[in-house]
Amino acid sequence: MCESCGVLLYNSAVSGNCYKVRLLAAQLDVPLELHELSVVDRSDRAEVLGGLNPALRVPTLVLDDGRPLAESNAILWYLGDGTRFVPEDRYERAQVLQWQFFEQYVHEPSIAVVRFLVAYSGEAEKHAQRIAERTAHGYVALDAMEAHLTGRSFLVAERYTLADISLYAYTHVAHEGRFDLAPYPAVRAWLDRVASQPGHIPIDA
Amino acid sequence: MCESCGVLLYNSAVSGNCYKVRLLAAQLDVPLELHELSVVDRSDRAEVLGGLNPALRVPTLVLDDGRPLAESNAILWYLGDGTRFVPEDRYERAQVLQWQFFEQYVHEPSIAVVRFLVAYSGEAEKHAQRIAERTAHGYVALDAMEAHLTGRSFLVAERYTLADISLYAYTHVAHEGRFDLAPYPAVRAWLDRVASQPGHIPIDA
Repeated sequence: MCESCGVLLYNSAVSGNCYKVRLLAAQLDVPLELHELSVVDRSDRAEVLGGLNPALRVPTLVLDDGRPLAESNAILWYLGDGTRFVPEDRYERAQVLQWQFFEQYVHEPSIAVVRFLVAYSGEAEKHAQRIAERTAHGYVALDAMEAHLTGRSFLVAERYTLADISLYAYTHVAHEGRFDLAPYPAVRAWLDRVASQPGHIPIDA
Repeated sequence: MCESCGVLLYNSAVSGNCYKVRLLAAQLDVPLELHELSVVDRSDRAEVLGGLNPALRVPTLVLDDGRPLAESNAILWYLGDGTRFVPEDRYERAQVLQWQFFEQYVHEPSIAVVRFLVAYSGEAEKHAQRIAERTAHGYVALDAMEAHLTGRSFLVAERYTLADISLYAYTHVAHEGRFDLAPYPAVRAWLDRVASQPGHIPIDA
């Protein structure tokens, strides 16, 4: 455990879902002790994460009293609610959640999965059909973001919130999955805006 | 719009995601005006939901002032936060979200998708391979729920919360996707417990 905070994060360096947690923690000055797990060889997952995370995935957070918490976006709310990264207004809070559920249902299963298969799985050729299908879904997700971000600075309430952290995580590395962001000027401007926030750290920090 | 509340729900009667919203609204005595859309013929989605929901899905809520809200679990939080269905404790609130993100990432894409393909798509044979793959994932989700619910009454904080509504929606109709719940006694007892909550309505109410 981290001595000054007692928060342990089961982490994978290349995982955008884990990066969300590391990015918010950095911006909140919350130190994390990282316990690294592989996203390719998952044979130790049940042994390490059993009883901590019903989905046996990273990120998994363990508090200083041993209580575990799973799902990247739930962890963001645990760390971020009550800070400047979460609006107080009821509708805006629900909008943050809307974009986070969009991320986990539409965006991550396409863009993150394609990135993993293309750049990290070591067997991209074997998954060519799945990559093609998911790539098409990924562009639908990017289309939705482009339409929403056109004329807006951030996803919700014209300010940087947990929603931006959640969508930034895999959008900013979409090129690793061979996604072309050239036709998405509003998304690219938003990526720059997120990366220029105080306390920002890159995924490979 | 519903005259007494002004809340419009773009709905599909057979959708578990929409049922979540109808169930919570019934238990909160919030009247909804339902606008029915098909989950099979989706050709009108862009025309009807464009500008309201980036994912063009039901449920989509429209408030009396015209502000839209998408994603079933975000809508539950909009309606339910501050009521007896959401804990006040920071960790328990995050646990509710954890199970809702589990639902949308692991449970719904397997159990709900198999149910749709088997019982509603009209072309189950065509999707036999996808049904087989997703069925296996669905049993993994049920295994995780069974392990967690063994020795517990509800998913979070030993009380009925939004998390139970979210997971109940598709678990209680999993048999329509040919899932066998016989090996899941803790899940079955929990289903009965959820169905006996005050104000409960069935999916076909």
